[in-house]
Amino acid sequence: MHLLPLSPIMIEPLVRNALLEDLGRAGDLTTDAIVPVDRVATTILVARQGGVVAGLDLAALAFRLIEPRIEMTIHCPDGGEVVPGKTIATIGGPARGLLTAERTALNFLGHLSGIATATHSVVTAIRGHKARIVCTRKTTPGLRTIEKYAVRAGGGANHRFGLDDAVLIKDNHIAVAGGIAAAVERARAGVGHLVKIEVEVDTLDQLDEALRLGVDAVLLDNMTPEQLRQAVTMVAGRAVTEASGRITPATAPSVAATGVDLISIGWLTHSAPVLDIGLDFQ
Amino acid sequence: MHLLPLSPIMIEPLVRNALLEDLGRAGDLTTDAIVPVDRVATTILVARQGGVVAGLDLAALAFRLIEPRIEMTIHCPDGGEVVPGKTIATIGGPARGLLTAERTALNFLGHLSGIATATHSVVTAIRGHKARIVCTRKTTPGLRTIEKYAVRAGGGANHRFGLDDAVLIKDNHIAVAGGIAAAVERARAGVGHLVKIEVEVDTLDQLDEALRLGVDAVLLDNMTPEQLRQAVTMVAGRAVTEASGRITPATAPSVAATGVDLISIGWLTHSAPVLDIGLDFQ
Amino acid sequence: MHLLPLSPIMIEPLVRNALLEDLGRAGDLTTDAIVPVDRVATTILVARQGGVVAGLDLAALAFRLIEPRIEMTIHCPDGGEVVPGKTIATIGGPARGLLTAERTALNFLGHLSGIATATHSVVTAIRGHKARIVCTRKTTPGLRTIEKYAVRAGGGANHRFGLDDAVLIKDNHIAVAGGIAAAVERARAGVGHLVKIEVEVDTLDQLDEALRLGVDAVLLDNMTPEQLRQAVTMVAGRAVTEASGRITPATAPSVAATGVDLISIGWLTHSAPVLDIGLDFQ
Amino acid sequence: MHLLPLSPIMIEPLVRNALLEDLGRAGDLTTDAIVPVDRVATTILVARQGGVVAGLDLAALAFRLIEPRIEMTIHCPDGGEVVPGKTIATIGGPARGLLTAERTALNFLGHLSGIATATHSVVTAIRGHKARIVCTRKTTPGLRTIEKYAVRAGGGANHRFGLDDAVLIKDNHIAVAGGIAAAVERARAGVGHLVKIEVEVDTLDQLDEALRLGVDAVLLDNMTPEQLRQAVTMVAGRAVTEASGRITPATAPSVAATGVDLISIGWLTHSAPVLDIGLDFQ
Amino acid sequence: MHLLPLSPIMIEPLVRNALLEDLGRAGDLTTDAIVPVDRVATTILVARQGGVVAGLDLAALAFRLIEPRIEMTIHCPDGGEVVPGKTIATIGGPARGLLTAERTALNFLGHLSGIATATHSVVTAIRGHKARIVCTRKTTPGLRTIEKYAVRAGGGANHRFGLDDAVLIKDNHIAVAGGIAAAVERARAGVGHLVKIEVEVDTLDQLDEALRLGVDAVLLDNMTPEQLRQAVTMVAGRAVTEASGRITPATAPSVAATGVDLISIGWLTHSAPVLDIGLDFQ
Amino acid sequence: MHLLPLSPIMIEPLVRNALLEDLGRAGDLTTDAIVPVDRVATTILVARQGGVVAGLDLAALAFRLIEPRIEMTIHCPDGGEVVPGKTIATIGGPARGLLTAERTALNFLGHLSGIATATHSVVTAIRGHKARIVCTRKTTPGLRTIEKYAVRAGGGANHRFGLDDAVLIKDNHIAVAGGIAAAVERARAGVGHLVKIEVEVDTLDQLDEALRLGVDAVLLDNMTPEQLRQAVTMVAGRAVTEASGRITPATAPSVAATGVDLISIGWLTHSAPVLDIGLDFQ
Repeated sequence: MHLLPLSPIMIEPLVRNALLEDLGRAGDLTTDAIVPVDRVATTILVARQGGVVAGLDLAALAFRLIEPRIEMTIHCPDGGEVVPGKTIATIGGPARGLLTAERTALNFLGHLSGIATATHSVVTAIRGHKARIVCTRKTTPGLRTIEKYAVRAGGGANHRFGLDDAVLIKDNHIAVAGGIAAAVERARAGVGHLVKIEVEVDTLDQLDEALRLGVDAVLLDNMTPEQLRQAVTMVAGRAVTEASGRITPATAPSVAATGVDLISIGWLTHSAPVLDIGLDFQ
Repeated sequence: MHLLPLSPIMIEPLVRNALLEDLGRAGDLTTDAIVPVDRVATTILVARQGGVVAGLDLAALAFRLIEPRIEMTIHCPDGGEVVPGKTIATIGGPARGLLTAERTALNFLGHLSGIATATHSVVTAIRGHKARIVCTRKTTPGLRTIEKYAVRAGGGANHRFGLDDAVLIKDNHIAVAGGIAAAVERARAGVGHLVKIEVEVDTLDQLDEALRLGVDAVLLDNMTPEQLRQAVTMVAGRAVTEASGRITPATAPSVAATGVDLISIGWLTHSAPVLDIGLDFQ
Repeated sequence: MHLLPLSPIMIEPLVRNALLEDLGRAGDLTTDAIVPVDRVATTILVARQGGVVAGLDLAALAFRLIEPRIEMTIHCPDGGEVVPGKTIATIGGPARGLLTAERTALNFLGHLSGIATATHSVVTAIRGHKARIVCTRKTTPGLRTIEKYAVRAGGGANHRFGLDDAVLIKDNHIAVAGGIAAAVERARAGVGHLVKIEVEVDTLDQLDEALRLGVDAVLLDNMTPEQLRQAVTMVAGRAVTEASGRITPATAPSVAATGVDLISIGWLTHSAPVLDIGLDFQ
Repeated sequence: MHLLPLSPIMIEPLVRNALLEDLGRAGDLTTDAIVPVDRVATTILVARQGGVVAGLDLAALAFRLIEPRIEMTIHCPDGGEVVPGKTIATIGGPARGLLTAERTALNFLGHLSGIATATHSVVTAIRGHKARIVCTRKTTPGLRTIEKYAVRAGGGANHRFGLDDAVLIKDNHIAVAGGIAAAVERARAGVGHLVKIEVEVDTLDQLDEALRLGVDAVLLDNMTPEQLRQAVTMVAGRAVTEASGRITPATAPSVAATGVDLISIGWLTHSAPVLDIGLDFQ
Repeated sequence: MHLLPLSPIMIEPLVRNALLEDLGRAGDLTTDAIVPVDRVATTILVARQGGVVAGLDLAALAFRLIEPRIEMTIHCPDGGEVVPGKTIATIGGPARGLLTAERTALNFLGHLSGIATATHSVVTAIRGHKARIVCTRKTTPGLRTIEKYAVRAGGGANHRFGLDDAVLIKDNHIAVAGGIAAAVERARAGVGHLVKIEVEVDTLDQLDEALRLGVDAVLLDNMTPEQLRQAVTMVAGRAVTEASGRITPATAPSVAATGVDLISIGWLTHSAPVLDIGLDFQ
Repeated sequence: MHLLPLSPIMIEPLVRNALLEDLGRAGDLTTDAIVPVDRVATTILVARQGGVVAGLDLAALAFRLIEPRIEMTIHCPDGGEVVPGKTIATIGGPARGLLTAERTALNFLGHLSGIATATHSVVTAIRGHKARIVCTRKTTPGLRTIEKYAVRAGGGANHRFGLDDAVLIKDNHIAVAGGIAAAVERARAGVGHLVKIEVEVDTLDQLDEALRLGVDAVLLDNMTPEQLRQAVTMVAGRAVTEASGRITPATAPSVAATGVDLISIGWLTHSAPVLDIGLDFQ
């Protein structure tokens, strides 16, 4: 399975915005004052921790938008694993551009590699089970597209990208509608044929009702492994089963062992620490 | 000391962008299909973990931009500490708007409260020392203004906001210039009288050279507490002293005890996990 | 079934942009030069043709963005049918604002009502059959969200909103992949669990292959009613069936009679003429 | 007479916006999952109907913004006539880019070629008469610049581009001002010397008054050919004469025969169906 | 003659952009740190020089976008003359907002009032003559709409707003075309009936040729008063006559006395000094 | 001392916006109608007045954004002095692009060169004194970054770029705080260690108070040379001294002779006339 890419036209506004945020109104005072305009340099991106890389296109674009003559040669592409000290890429060109874009490039790269690494840690933990690790809508505001990409780079898959590409009926929707059946019926009437419907269920009774309504997927929220196992048995392939609820690399194996199709984890995108990657001037 | 606020005109584009990212092209399918347009509800923002709150203005704006009739009453303002179960705010109005804006509001609030909480944990650890905790430029792309605000909400202070509001001469600048003196001289010639100059030093010899040049601040990078103590003694108030290098709540007290003025910490903004805050429908 | 609404935050940029396009650099020269600033007027939106209304929120916003004191009272909401001469809404306030925003408001209203009316004509033609009328991605650049809304207002349903909310495997994808099976397999591996997969088939052999792969929907392209009937029989409820290929109100009934689930029609959004609606000053 | 072009800097935002609208948050799932990154292809743009081409620059830009290595060779430039089956252009390059940009490119090309074709049909109908066919401000919101260009490509000419580049005094303005003379006088006092003034007249008495005021042009609204002929005689070259009022290819010749200078037609831009153009992979 | 206004929807982006430019990433540090949030104040806008006011709507919007509770009462509206010490407006509300928006508001007001004042000085100098003072396209990048408004506020009129609202054939166009006749003919063929054509002429021979072509206006560039007088006589009302070429309040009367219709002056918009207006806290 | 440059990524939005402002909705009617698409030309930028050049990068970008094949060779770079008749640059390429971008390029170049020239006139007037000439926040809305650059090109230095990169405590802040000491204390508590604090003082008593508080700089507002001399003596190097108050080239030498460090001048950016630079076709 290859990694679904990011379209350059989609990431350029993000990188441009981040650079302008850092340049402010006066630009890179330190570098412009100190570094001669014709100085060139070669640098390497080096992993200071082990993990999975994601975001090299954004880093490359940060350098290129500041200085089109900067060139990057990638040694370990997005989705690749690194050990501490591993050279990820070589980046060379005018020294001013390298210094000015460095922090923005690293901010993207560290953040996305952190998400990829976190995802990979859970994916690895459940290897051998059929379950896939998926992310949620608990993303950093404005960065959903690239954070979901980082999850893919780490071996995970994507849940909804937004409120509009699938129906996910939660407890409050059910309460307002007066029951699962009413909620599902209204959703079916309102949306197109390519929109899947998933329902959050807290009990096996709710699960039974959802299954009889023929929903596409069920979100089994905060269930114990034992409950999950019963749920999976009850579903018997009639719907996609998704387990959620503060699952960690430590608890993931027991969840995966229940036979669920998906394990969704919010902290991959909202709380993964950065992967420490540095830029070393040669 | 009160908390320097965020100007509404500065945060509106961020909130608007985040909402549109979530709404996509078709809007909130689930809610619009299921929830009657005239249904109203009351909800409460509840802390599920202990920590420090930050970002209520962004959360309130998320609700108001989706539905101007939604009103929020704040019980624990930004900068306030919460224990698990604490009600932070009451939010009421049309149920559709509450459900549609919920995730965006929580994404801002959880992220910023996470940063404030992390900051607060270090600030608390060094209470009694004069040192202030400051953040860096290692921020999430596009969110620097609000992440720096969250650091303030947690009791910290702000370092540079970008490449253009202060000079920070790092090792690579010094190498290019051929020494600290040359680098500082070029910087002085190039920037205005209200721009401070800080120099990163790795050794006491470098520190001595920087002090003789009359720089405003020195960044003491990756020094041991013993080295820091010597450095502070050598500086003797002639410059602001800043310690940096992977400092944690556990190691911060020994760093603070050296008498440095500032402790700068990158992970506050790039790796703090969210503070878990939920929205409960009453 | 109620009409899924447009979020105000999503349409404001479109209306603002359209007004600025019309105002140019100097504004409404004619009105500003001739009409006194304190003149008020009452106007009515009147249908000059029979059809279905769509776009009143955009029209109202056009007036309000130019002049916040303009008020609109709606007599026939979006989705409602009108006969020639029917008053759709009453709009009153400062005369300058009414005259300046008039064309922009009518351009939105006429265009969207035209789409709703065209949709309604086909929906009506197949009344009694189970098939739903759906639109395509053949929309006017920049207006997809509101044109898809207009289709809903006319009683139709929505197909994909873009390249990213469902997989639709067409002949060229199949040719590149070397067959339907390979294409479907690669798609399954690449996308999330809430993304449905539809395959375009031209023959019953292809249909058979697609069904055995368990795809969610099949696009039966340019088939005769007889072929469609065979296809529907072969599918036997295992997938959603979609007929396409220049279907008109005249040919739609025979297509619908084949038992397909969906009839997709590109011209609803790319070639429907406007519904003639005028603004009469009282 | 050559065709006044579109400046690339003016169309790029439109094309970029349309592509992003289609890519959404996750990009082209189908193509990215199925088509290998190194696959190249050659395609041809083929007319499936006879008509006049317009919008090739926008189509080319759509492909190039997605994939800079895609190249287009034009065989029939904008303004050229095509018969069904005619190859308009050859487009070759990476297959992913071709598939991803295809729909956006065709949406622009079909829409603008549809307008050019509609315009051409009326222009052809009145060949031999001096009258020119002109469009109005009844354009699709956001697309005025390119729709007016398409009218030119079809052999027509442009009326006002907005509210600010000419004065057009309509019945409501006259009513507010208390008469044509007052309206014209106020307009003259308010606008610059390069702004022409046109007045809408419904009767020959009004026409007489407008002519005595020395206006630049008169809009003869909804007049019969006989009335138009009288009007043209009365004007005797003192002003530009413009006929309007639901004129079609069928009725245009009799209108043109009256000797009017201009025939303005709203449906060219608001109701012309697309010209069916396809992209065939070789 | 009343002053053609600025539409609020047109100026809001300019004011918003200017405020954000001043707020940067951290906002008004000084005011937020020092001034209590609940402090209110009353201020007055006072002219420190005599001149003509323009730009009050932009100033008011600057205050309101920062703080909606700020209210402005205008004592001398745009276009009004002030003597030193004159109170132009009273502005009251939260002190923080007053201090934060002050500079942006004054920057707009001073700049536009400076243009209005410069315009007024020439308008006054030629009082009694029929000539009108008009501005050019030599405006500050990004501010054309409001600078042209300021010229109107000073009693002047507007020339072209851009390259697209009139044809102005200059010496280089004539040289390329191979003569005035060829240039005018090509222009006529290319543009719509509401676009006026003006030709720059340097000699009376050129003027004669232009007049025979029936152009709408002639730009008499850098002619002496004597040449202008001859030109006006030769034109004899057949075209609008415009004199240009570094005309000042001192030289304007002799130019106006030649009987030209228009005197165009670039420095009104590119070199007028600000009118000194201050904001005094009471 | 070299000239701190403008980052291309920072100026592109300004140039793009200015071009679009001039092109409007229909583009350069005159040039597109008259000049053949394949005509090329060579032009030279010529100084018509003596002064200092600034803004060549913006001019070059204006031409390149309209027509990528246009090339500019610079003979006198930004910061260089020119005499009347001096050729600043040679610009060649397609004639249409040269004519269309000409005015926008010259508007930037003339405006910025005007500021550079004005700055240079004061810098020259005080040559031999240690004082530096600095600009203020009294800039043209939206152009602060490039106007501050022009001041540097003229040999001046920059004051604050906005409200957020330094604290400047003015009389109104002092009044609200109840004294200089309270104001400075609150500011110190609120801002980061790299933010300098400057206080405006009107009397020597205030100066004394400010100095005892250890502020970084003092703004000596509207003092006579004698008062300035006393102030400088009193400061004795403990703070940066800045003189302000309507200082001109004529009065600057006597101010500089007082020994102040900085002379700040608002009119450099808000009232400098353009430097007359023309584009001559060869």
